[in-house]
Amino acid sequence: MSVTFAKGFRAAGVEAGVSAVAGKKDVALVVNDGPLDAAAGVFTSNRFCAAPVRYSRKAVADGHVKAVILNSGGANACTGQAGYDQSAATAEQVAALVGCAAMDVAVCSTGLIGELLPLDNVLAGARAAHGALAATERAGADASLAIMTTDTRPKTVEIEGAGYRIGGMVKGSGMIAPQLATMLCVITTDAVVSAGQLQAALGAAVDASFNRIDVDGCMSTNDTVLLLASGASGVEPDKDEFNRLVARACADLARQIIGDGEGSSHDVRITVTGATTEDAALACGRAVAASNLLKCAISGNDPNWGRIVSSIGTVPESVAPYDPDQVSVDVNGVRICDGGKPGRDRSEVDMTPREVHIDIDLHAGEAQATVWTDDLTLDYVHINADYES
Amino acid sequence: MSVTFAKGFRAAGVEAGVSAVAGKKDVALVVNDGPLDAAAGVFTSNRFCAAPVRYSRKAVADGHVKAVILNSGGANACTGQAGYDQSAATAEQVAALVGCAAMDVAVCSTGLIGELLPLDNVLAGARAAHGALAATERAGADASLAIMTTDTRPKTVEIEGAGYRIGGMVKGSGMIAPQLATMLCVITTDAVVSAGQLQAALGAAVDASFNRIDVDGCMSTNDTVLLLASGASGVEPDKDEFNRLVARACADLARQIIGDGEGSSHDVRITVTGATTEDAALACGRAVAASNLLKCAISGNDPNWGRIVSSIGTVPESVAPYDPDQVSVDVNGVRICDGGKPGRDRSEVDMTPREVHIDIDLHAGEAQATVWTDDLTLDYVHINADYES
Repeated sequence: MSVTFAKGFRAAGVEAGVSAVAGKKDVALVVNDGPLDAAAGVFTSNRFCAAPVRYSRKAVADGHVKAVILNSGGANACTGQAGYDQSAATAEQVAALVGCAAMDVAVCSTGLIGELLPLDNVLAGARAAHGALAATERAGADASLAIMTTDTRPKTVEIEGAGYRIGGMVKGSGMIAPQLATMLCVITTDAVVSAGQLQAALGAAVDASFNRIDVDGCMSTNDTVLLLASGASGVEPDKDEFNRLVARACADLARQIIGDGEGSSHDVRITVTGATTEDAALACGRAVAASNLLKCAISGNDPNWGRIVSSIGTVPESVAPYDPDQVSVDVNGVRICDGGKPGRDRSEVDMTPREVHIDIDLHAGEAQATVWTDDLTLDYVHINADYES
Repeated sequence: MSVTFAKGFRAAGVEAGVSAVAGKKDVALVVNDGPLDAAAGVFTSNRFCAAPVRYSRKAVADGHVKAVILNSGGANACTGQAGYDQSAATAEQVAALVGCAAMDVAVCSTGLIGELLPLDNVLAGARAAHGALAATERAGADASLAIMTTDTRPKTVEIEGAGYRIGGMVKGSGMIAPQLATMLCVITTDAVVSAGQLQAALGAAVDASFNRIDVDGCMSTNDTVLLLASGASGVEPDKDEFNRLVARACADLARQIIGDGEGSSHDVRITVTGATTEDAALACGRAVAASNLLKCAISGNDPNWGRIVSSIGTVPESVAPYDPDQVSVDVNGVRICDGGKPGRDRSEVDMTPREVHIDIDLHAGEAQATVWTDDLTLDYVHINADYES
């Protein structure tokens, strides 16, 4: 269902020859038929942000977006003015088809950095996608397929609220790290909400989801998360419930990204408790999630707690006050580090499940935070030594 | 020659059954016969620092060290009071053999975190090493072999000053990142210098060498760099020359660590020029050195400049002011990114040499810095998925 789960949205995904992979759908279009066209967005903080990010940031700034055009097969990043002109031309093509202003069209691209897009193919893809637009489950699924790159499966979400719906799709598998990731995400709702309310909901949801996953520590130039409201349900949602459901949609999609992390064989949940502040817990969790050594160990089913504590040992005391001699670490429920020293034997830990749970208690306060990462496998290196498109 | 290149030092390396690898030398001893016993040290900033680090930090604090005992096969980190007692007992054994105070003995350990050492073997190793002490080339070589873990070769340095000598050995291959690395390093000199002068020379030298290499972004619990002076040459060196030579010794050893980085197939020099400050250049260089995606690409002989600029794009503007549209990137002398856009074709870059040179010009100022890293290979994952000792 994806983005078409919410009423008032049509979508399509078509093959347009943008991607080098023969037979792959590579252009997606999402159109908001209203009555509202409220929109919010969160974008990469990378200073080398791509042309489509620069364009879409402007398009979303006024809180109105009628359509989103997305392509895989090329990031259109580090392509200068010519790249920006391509994003603008793509938006103009979509605007002419849909009957709106070019500044009401958001543009998203993903793929190799440093090359211009085959613009004719993208524009032809936009026309074909417009001709294929539908509000069906199939159309939503096609769109979620068209934005995939190294993803091995589409990632979508559908949530039912009190009289309204939220749907969404995301792509992302590598170059995934806070803040954001190589990810494009479109979330739709038929609730009646203002652009300001959307932005508040999205900002908080992204902070607690996409900003707490880390596949490989690398920040992308193209990250874009959009939240669009059609108002087609006619229902004004309870604000707290709406925020909760948007947060749930983002968390669900973020979890799917980790589940499909490049080459990964384990999804790793790292929860830090007993911290003085949430920021302190988060800093420790992020340090563990960034450890190549730990991630290699996990790929070898080794619950190497020395690599866990040595990672949190790199977090400055000013950021996360704790006493190393008080720290405990549980892996999959077995306390293998207790008071900074060896606890139960590591052989007691069952590392065969895909999901690995690392629970670190700093014994310094009441705050906590959770981050997710993947293990580092031979396949990750294979994929990224050879990635060209 | 290693540490015995400088007059006034004897060394030994013996097999004592500390390492699980049969036949491997695993205990080294270095003794300073004077007339001076001046010493300086730099240690890991990891908050989970190992027992031998805690012991040696105290031993070096007064500027006097008579002997250094080092073992591979176990890090004695995260082992609590029992681990500290092992380090102290080892120092006491050496002190009794050498005839000095236990607080004039430094202790270094490297290997798996979270397990106590087989203390009887370490103590027997200390006695055997004391019996084997010699000022010969062979004895220095044995010591450099005994401290190896995943290193594939010993790493030593010999530098001739004006009437005095500097020798050294280091081990380190993985868990290598600023600040310092899983590295143990002992540098000796027969120059007549004070402990204060040694500390100043060593601090500056470490900052410009070991703190500018990054194999895998992981900081160790056990890093130790010691600089010992015997004064046996009778020569008081020119201070600037001495500082330069200590810096050269550290740079040489750091370069050898990169050349032997776990599983690496390329040594990568990253030089950032045109920065507003050295710190800005360093922050950009470190960001590039930490990119798993770039390091995978280099292992596949792909000069993927998109992964270079997206890495420096993560450095906040407050740390490194520059205009992304001005940045150029040369790989092995070919300007493949020019003004933030594609330059010459990436196919012009010859990636076959082991050494890869990445030159980034920020076009924002006059400062520069260089860091070194390795590529990320299948073998790195192999080694670290299976590492147990």
